[in-house]
Amino acid sequence: MSKTSWKTSVTKIQPNEVRLRGYRIDELMGRVTFAEAIFLALTGELPPPKIARLLDAMLVSSIDHGATPPSALAARTAASTGAPLNAAIAAGILSINRYHGAAIFDCMGVLEEGLQRAAASESNLDRVAADLVAEYRQAKKRIAGLGHRIHRDDPRTRKLFRLAEELGVANSGVAMMRAIHQAFTSAGKELPINVDGAIAALLVDLKLPRELANAFFIMARVPGLVAHVHEEQTRERAMRIIDPTEHEYDGPPARSVD
Amino acid sequence: MSKTSWKTSVTKIQPNEVRLRGYRIDELMGRVTFAEAIFLALTGELPPPKIARLLDAMLVSSIDHGATPPSALAARTAASTGAPLNAAIAAGILSINRYHGAAIFDCMGVLEEGLQRAAASESNLDRVAADLVAEYRQAKKRIAGLGHRIHRDDPRTRKLFRLAEELGVANSGVAMMRAIHQAFTSAGKELPINVDGAIAALLVDLKLPRELANAFFIMARVPGLVAHVHEEQTRERAMRIIDPTEHEYDGPPARSVD
Amino acid sequence: MSKTSWKTSVTKIQPNEVRLRGYRIDELMGRVTFAEAIFLALTGELPPPKIARLLDAMLVSSIDHGATPPSALAARTAASTGAPLNAAIAAGILSINRYHGAAIFDCMGVLEEGLQRAAASESNLDRVAADLVAEYRQAKKRIAGLGHRIHRDDPRTRKLFRLAEELGVANSGVAMMRAIHQAFTSAGKELPINVDGAIAALLVDLKLPRELANAFFIMARVPGLVAHVHEEQTRERAMRIIDPTEHEYDGPPARSVD
Amino acid sequence: MSKTSWKTSVTKIQPNEVRLRGYRIDELMGRVTFAEAIFLALTGELPPPKIARLLDAMLVSSIDHGATPPSALAARTAASTGAPLNAAIAAGILSINRYHGAAIFDCMGVLEEGLQRAAASESNLDRVAADLVAEYRQAKKRIAGLGHRIHRDDPRTRKLFRLAEELGVANSGVAMMRAIHQAFTSAGKELPINVDGAIAALLVDLKLPRELANAFFIMARVPGLVAHVHEEQTRERAMRIIDPTEHEYDGPPARSVD
Repeated sequence: MSKTSWKTSVTKIQPNEVRLRGYRIDELMGRVTFAEAIFLALTGELPPPKIARLLDAMLVSSIDHGATPPSALAARTAASTGAPLNAAIAAGILSINRYHGAAIFDCMGVLEEGLQRAAASESNLDRVAADLVAEYRQAKKRIAGLGHRIHRDDPRTRKLFRLAEELGVANSGVAMMRAIHQAFTSAGKELPINVDGAIAALLVDLKLPRELANAFFIMARVPGLVAHVHEEQTRERAMRIIDPTEHEYDGPPARSVD
Repeated sequence: MSKTSWKTSVTKIQPNEVRLRGYRIDELMGRVTFAEAIFLALTGELPPPKIARLLDAMLVSSIDHGATPPSALAARTAASTGAPLNAAIAAGILSINRYHGAAIFDCMGVLEEGLQRAAASESNLDRVAADLVAEYRQAKKRIAGLGHRIHRDDPRTRKLFRLAEELGVANSGVAMMRAIHQAFTSAGKELPINVDGAIAALLVDLKLPRELANAFFIMARVPGLVAHVHEEQTRERAMRIIDPTEHEYDGPPARSVD
Repeated sequence: MSKTSWKTSVTKIQPNEVRLRGYRIDELMGRVTFAEAIFLALTGELPPPKIARLLDAMLVSSIDHGATPPSALAARTAASTGAPLNAAIAAGILSINRYHGAAIFDCMGVLEEGLQRAAASESNLDRVAADLVAEYRQAKKRIAGLGHRIHRDDPRTRKLFRLAEELGVANSGVAMMRAIHQAFTSAGKELPINVDGAIAALLVDLKLPRELANAFFIMARVPGLVAHVHEEQTRERAMRIIDPTEHEYDGPPARSVD
Repeated sequence: MSKTSWKTSVTKIQPNEVRLRGYRIDELMGRVTFAEAIFLALTGELPPPKIARLLDAMLVSSIDHGATPPSALAARTAASTGAPLNAAIAAGILSINRYHGAAIFDCMGVLEEGLQRAAASESNLDRVAADLVAEYRQAKKRIAGLGHRIHRDDPRTRKLFRLAEELGVANSGVAMMRAIHQAFTSAGKELPINVDGAIAALLVDLKLPRELANAFFIMARVPGLVAHVHEEQTRERAMRIIDPTEHEYDGPPARSVD
């Protein structure tokens, strides 16, 4: 073995055999959903069914948020100059950072800090949350996961939390997030828990490492970026001026799954 | 309406309401899988259940292929210099092109050409395939979707085609791909249908526009890239020399889903 | 030597010695300009002084074109989400394609085609140009290098051509470009030679390989992108809506070098 | 003026007129070098001639460092899959981060901290440097700008410092860097000042804002990345295994400028 030899625990490739985290990929195909395979790729284990269902909901929640987010605009801008699809998607992903999508990482940090304080001090979450919120307000720092440019009651958050509670998956992460939101409201500032905050709370309860926080948003949003890039490529003329707000929806009318 | 106003049919955003292709996203959450939502985002319609199951299998088939593909190496190389996760993923996606992953687009072109010729000449697929293969061989051009650096009988192709046939989804795309493979074999050259070729055949049968071909591979591979980047960030030292072949698998041992 | 061993002719690195195309880099430093080193890196040879001066002018000509080009908007969009400088620059470069900047490649193709026809038929350039223009108009194809969204008489083109003529560097590339422009005008359509067209003509005369065409624009524009990203990071608030046209210049007033 | 209107001080575009920081770009062309125009774009002012000459040397110093740096490998890896030139360059730039190239930013931080301490305490630089080095060693942190994978006496540093001193541009930044290096050596650890450290010291003396630190390395390295990508595209077969170390130089033999 040479001195630059290294090890990987993701996938084993042999002629005519591909094993992801130990499982034959052709055995996984047809038996597990894409969301389950994602969880397997990231954590090393397949999720129990109730977590699988929550993962699907989490990924669906963030699949797209219209044409105004910077990631959609950057992807469309690149596409408009003639970029191939992969380059336009890359430009979109490069626009997912601290202020867009990547708040999940920061919010998990706040939640983990809160839970550690609660464990260390044997305080209840409400008290810890009140202290945290007071500290952030004093330092004039935003708490990631609260507030949204458009929504005052984010329907994705509401649904994710209800689903997590129905499935029995909601735990201290969700409780801490709710406590912080409550403390914020008590302090006289009404800001909704946004979808980043909801996903952060659920990732804490799923015990996913915080370093993978933003990966969730990126994986979820790539299909939405593909839809925008494809629409730009097929519907708009090259090099148009892309107004970030002056657009209207003209797709299928409001409808229901049933 | 200003003169730079434009239209989008992907998603409609209003305060407290997000609709993807007409459906409320909080209604989709918990009711449809991520794969179904991807199909909805890309095509505008939810897939029937049997296509949903095939989509999951297609996405799972390409989720990862170890550390040697250039997309994994580029993502790990960027990560090794201290790139944030999104930038490392972007570097990986920028390495998915004509010769890696993106053969799906080229292969769909061959299949669509073959099917048009068959329709125009009322010939059977075997004759059309024999002609196509002869033409490509004479022009010394490779047929995308055939051959693999490692596999002589790609287990992912085998499973995808069997599943598509069981589900009753396999149609002329799969038939054309099989005919081309057969013609190739008859001409004395043994090359397996690779996973790009299998996905190309299925995308033809699902009537997806060819411009979205590579999007499938990209969406499927992003989680694998995340796993590699995370492993590089947590397990390896910065700026190591990344040998592209001298690595061994040390993850979970071979195991079965049941 | 292992079977994956390969060769490179760009740079030789030994302990305490770096040689670019054979020259010690510490000998080049202080003796050649950055533009001369760029030419050396790309072609393998240092340019004669008059070409060095033209190269500087070519690179300066494309260093920036304000905040409206898609590359500037994509870079600013990424920066606005909190992207580090290198990722924002990458997003900008991903927006330099066929319809923005990369017309140099297409235009060089037209010029080389024209010059080959002229050589083959012993025709004069005016006749060849008239035929080419007629063919493009009949096929309803644009000729890259002609026309600009804003300028009707591009000051950069005018200066580049005059300088190339003064320096004695202008040759058949410039002549062919002028002939095409003239044929276009004679056909009743007034479009200026844009800066891409001017650079294309000069690169033909400098005998640079066409595959490096777009590299010139990219190398020239990176500093401009840096200026825009830095301004966005230091002057604007995160996640602002970036209007692509509603901006005004408030930098130093009009002034002259002397 | 609409409420999303904004201002930029980089470039003013009017029909037939482009002004960079107030200067007509066609007046700059042929009168200033690319390096001078870069300085103008970044800082708003043209540099005095001696700084112009130093800037050229700084940019030349970092134009390439062979095929082993991660940025070159990532760019070649993307190119090898069929990426267009701009996407391959972007992949390379995404691999310029904290551990590769971007040490300039960290090193400027150390130097500015040292200079502030010296000013505040009226201590001499040697004492401040000794304290800083001791603190870093105790905290087991690396000091950016010291040490190199290959060079024990970086010829680029030596030349940059000598040139800066000859031109009378070297000031407290260079002095602080030398003092830190000396303190490090006195503490028994021999590490050369690498090119990042040298550029950091010079940028401090040129009073460039630290946020532009890494921009220098990126602007300087893009031409080198272009050379590698072009070589990969024209000389190597697609999808080869790119061994990061097993390559030999076969370009022009060692030669001298005169």
